[in-house]
Amino acid sequence: MSAKSLKNTLYDIVFESDTRKGKTFDLILLVVILISVVLVVVESVPRFRERYGEILHLSEWIITIIFSIEYIIRLFITRKPIKYVFSFFGVVDLLSVIPTYLSLILTGVQGLMVIRAIRLLRVFRILKLNRYTNEGTMIIRALKAARVKISVFLFAILMVILIIGTLMYLIEGELNGFTSIPVGIYWAIVTLTTVGYGDITPLTELGKFISAIVMILGYAIIAVPTGIVTAELVRFNKKHDDIRVCPECFNEDNDKDAKFCKKCGAPLPK
Amino acid sequence: MSAKSLKNTLYDIVFESDTRKGKTFDLILLVVILISVVLVVVESVPRFRERYGEILHLSEWIITIIFSIEYIIRLFITRKPIKYVFSFFGVVDLLSVIPTYLSLILTGVQGLMVIRAIRLLRVFRILKLNRYTNEGTMIIRALKAARVKISVFLFAILMVILIIGTLMYLIEGELNGFTSIPVGIYWAIVTLTTVGYGDITPLTELGKFISAIVMILGYAIIAVPTGIVTAELVRFNKKHDDIRVCPECFNEDNDKDAKFCKKCGAPLPK
Amino acid sequence: MSAKSLKNTLYDIVFESDTRKGKTFDLILLVVILISVVLVVVESVPRFRERYGEILHLSEWIITIIFSIEYIIRLFITRKPIKYVFSFFGVVDLLSVIPTYLSLILTGVQGLMVIRAIRLLRVFRILKLNRYTNEGTMIIRALKAARVKISVFLFAILMVILIIGTLMYLIEGELNGFTSIPVGIYWAIVTLTTVGYGDITPLTELGKFISAIVMILGYAIIAVPTGIVTAELVRFNKKHDDIRVCPECFNEDNDKDAKFCKKCGAPLPK
Amino acid sequence: MSAKSLKNTLYDIVFESDTRKGKTFDLILLVVILISVVLVVVESVPRFRERYGEILHLSEWIITIIFSIEYIIRLFITRKPIKYVFSFFGVVDLLSVIPTYLSLILTGVQGLMVIRAIRLLRVFRILKLNRYTNEGTMIIRALKAARVKISVFLFAILMVILIIGTLMYLIEGELNGFTSIPVGIYWAIVTLTTVGYGDITPLTELGKFISAIVMILGYAIIAVPTGIVTAELVRFNKKHDDIRVCPECFNEDNDKDAKFCKKCGAPLPK
Repeated sequence: MSAKSLKNTLYDIVFESDTRKGKTFDLILLVVILISVVLVVVESVPRFRERYGEILHLSEWIITIIFSIEYIIRLFITRKPIKYVFSFFGVVDLLSVIPTYLSLILTGVQGLMVIRAIRLLRVFRILKLNRYTNEGTMIIRALKAARVKISVFLFAILMVILIIGTLMYLIEGELNGFTSIPVGIYWAIVTLTTVGYGDITPLTELGKFISAIVMILGYAIIAVPTGIVTAELVRFNKKHDDIRVCPECFNEDNDKDAKFCKKCGAPLPK
Repeated sequence: MSAKSLKNTLYDIVFESDTRKGKTFDLILLVVILISVVLVVVESVPRFRERYGEILHLSEWIITIIFSIEYIIRLFITRKPIKYVFSFFGVVDLLSVIPTYLSLILTGVQGLMVIRAIRLLRVFRILKLNRYTNEGTMIIRALKAARVKISVFLFAILMVILIIGTLMYLIEGELNGFTSIPVGIYWAIVTLTTVGYGDITPLTELGKFISAIVMILGYAIIAVPTGIVTAELVRFNKKHDDIRVCPECFNEDNDKDAKFCKKCGAPLPK
Repeated sequence: MSAKSLKNTLYDIVFESDTRKGKTFDLILLVVILISVVLVVVESVPRFRERYGEILHLSEWIITIIFSIEYIIRLFITRKPIKYVFSFFGVVDLLSVIPTYLSLILTGVQGLMVIRAIRLLRVFRILKLNRYTNEGTMIIRALKAARVKISVFLFAILMVILIIGTLMYLIEGELNGFTSIPVGIYWAIVTLTTVGYGDITPLTELGKFISAIVMILGYAIIAVPTGIVTAELVRFNKKHDDIRVCPECFNEDNDKDAKFCKKCGAPLPK
Repeated sequence: MSAKSLKNTLYDIVFESDTRKGKTFDLILLVVILISVVLVVVESVPRFRERYGEILHLSEWIITIIFSIEYIIRLFITRKPIKYVFSFFGVVDLLSVIPTYLSLILTGVQGLMVIRAIRLLRVFRILKLNRYTNEGTMIIRALKAARVKISVFLFAILMVILIIGTLMYLIEGELNGFTSIPVGIYWAIVTLTTVGYGDITPLTELGKFISAIVMILGYAIIAVPTGIVTAELVRFNKKHDDIRVCPECFNEDNDKDAKFCKKCGAPLPK
């Protein structure tokens, strides 16, 4: 086998996921990524770190070496190495191996390895021909369609949060835990989103009154992002239901009650 | 009465719930199950256990014996005993009596008896001809239709939770209560779902800033599952609404309460 | 003016709210009710009770006497006094005055006077010809239409709560605050509804893991009641939009694209 | 350049935002407002106040002078100065500069400067020709359409909160933290909105039972405002979608991207 055909074969295995070999490669890679993420999580638990420290350390190096080899292969076989290096997955692939090497020089960089979790996104590449991605795409399209509305809404909410946070800082003061406006803003966010940790709570009567109003306000406005996303999803669902394909131009976007194709004007079969 | 006809009669009473006797049997059984669940709950309260210990113990054994007899009858009269034993209700029926017998040998298994609560699901068998089940089925069908979308969404959320949890572990560190990545993940779930216990809260300024972003993020994404389920329910409602076909022009879009076709005016059959 | 015509005039004022005098009477009554509720709330604050105790006590008696006179008038002028006494508002009207008289004999019954708040419901009688009630009726009708679905859902949730509560009682045990199954159920409700007080939180690792799953579960199922109510409201809105009145039978429930009335089959004007 | 034409030119720059110069002016103003808000927030943090106190003080005066000059120019060049002074933005513009001047005489008024945040609303003037405002308008119109329904709902909720708050005050009593009815109401709001700080929690068994019911109630009714807003947004989306009329058959139901009428096949004007 020539060097070139080896490169092509490797390319099919590593970059494609439609072929059987490519799918197998991607599946094995996913399992290794999953193991690497579990290892990072397990290692952060003091109890496990003490007991299984050495085996965890060893596994980490094995996985790092596997990932490094994979990265070099990808770099070697792709036609556009520069493009790959600066692509989203190229950067993530590199960041997945760097922390382990850095740990030889620095300490406290182990946790950064959780960036490997992002590599799990490759799972969608394997499933790409499958309805999971279609459904995912539909959610993303609905969210994109709702993007502008949600941005306008978030901007308005942020201004409300800024004003409420300052108001509470003025009312409650530093003695009651509202030590600065940023703390007041943090409190306003914790309250408006109904998280409600309780680490900072209003202690004065006026503060309690204002925060009661803020909560009821939050109760009413939590409806808005939900409404926006739901309305988009209802619209997408409706379009998805009412599909009629044109026999002339194969436009798939005709309504159920259409008699003529809306793109080319050809009559639709009854 | 021959043994066979006795078996048939018992079968009608125990397994069927359309006949009057079957319905009565099921109703009595439901009441006994409800009492048994209440007993388990009551017994767990120290105050009641001390005062009514003996009567509770006695009632428990009476109910266990009733359930055991019922289980043996079911086993005896069904045509396919093996199938019943391994069916969902067969397993639940057996698990409902085992803990009491086990308690003769072991201690601390009393709580397991709450598995009897699952037997309450039989309530739907009695109501099976009734609109309650239809409505329940509709919710389940809408959830099933939304299953793929919700799975994709939950997978994405779990990855976000993993990354946020690790980030907070790195930022806050063990001294501030984030003792490991799993604890960070627990915190991320408590925050993103807006439960907000407050048992672990960010103490550093950067941590508070990140968690404020996480909360606003959670505020926006809580809209997604709601949107998905609502969109499905709207679609089901719509389908459920449009169900009368005109015998003249085959228009399918007549309301349920229509007497004449809205397209051609032809009378609709009752 | 004869006794009978006085009775009739009083009836128009007290029971009717369409006439100008009736409306004025109802408005004044509403203001008095509002004052009485504010007084009960204010009196519960120790600081105000100490300072304005006497004036509050006096006002309370004045209002009680006003309400007593009103009750006696209602009883006297209505044609069916028995029916009024046992009607919803009859019972509430009586309960509004009893606590003050009881306070001459007993102590600690003052708070019961807040039952007067229910009298505020009369506000809807004044607004009864007005769109506020229409909108309210629409919400109530949508909730009624969703009633069966919400009941089925709540029943399922309650069973889930029962099982989760018991599970956490078994896992966490009495030392970690889960002193009985009812406490476990209380914790499950606090968590599933995302209230999250933090008065009882899981302390064991397994408990934290289970509660993380419960929260994500709660995150997904909070979508269901929202979806049910929204779907009903969308349907009601849609019906409200698509209104065409039949010129023959005045049926108002024809769709926007209907050509014939669905009740009488008469052709609709274009 | 005459005084009058100077005034006109200034008017175009300061009050208009369609011209290039007007847009530039508005953008610079927005940046200054943003800086001024950030300064107020930063100054509230003790650490920053100590270290950068002087520079913050100086910047504040510079910004106040810029805003004062802007206010005087606006007052000078507008045709209706009285109307401007009492307009929403006129009042906000004045309130944005007063606190700094007041701080020469009084202390503790610095925080009031956050009122400058409201000036950020001018951002919508710059974006006024742009889809951001359209989307914002759509949300506002949907909220306005839902206003009556939400008011009815909030009124009902407030009455429920009043009654629950009093009930808990009676059940829990002053020893368990429910020191007055207003505190009970505060607790009811914290619980019903699922914020759940945990600063006041039920301690008696009856109190826990009642609050569990309140939470499940809150779980069901949180669906209502969401449903109301969503239903309106779905309706608006639907109206927004159906906007192309066929010039031949006057069918109004063509999609926005249609090139031919779906009913008669006639080409639609671009």
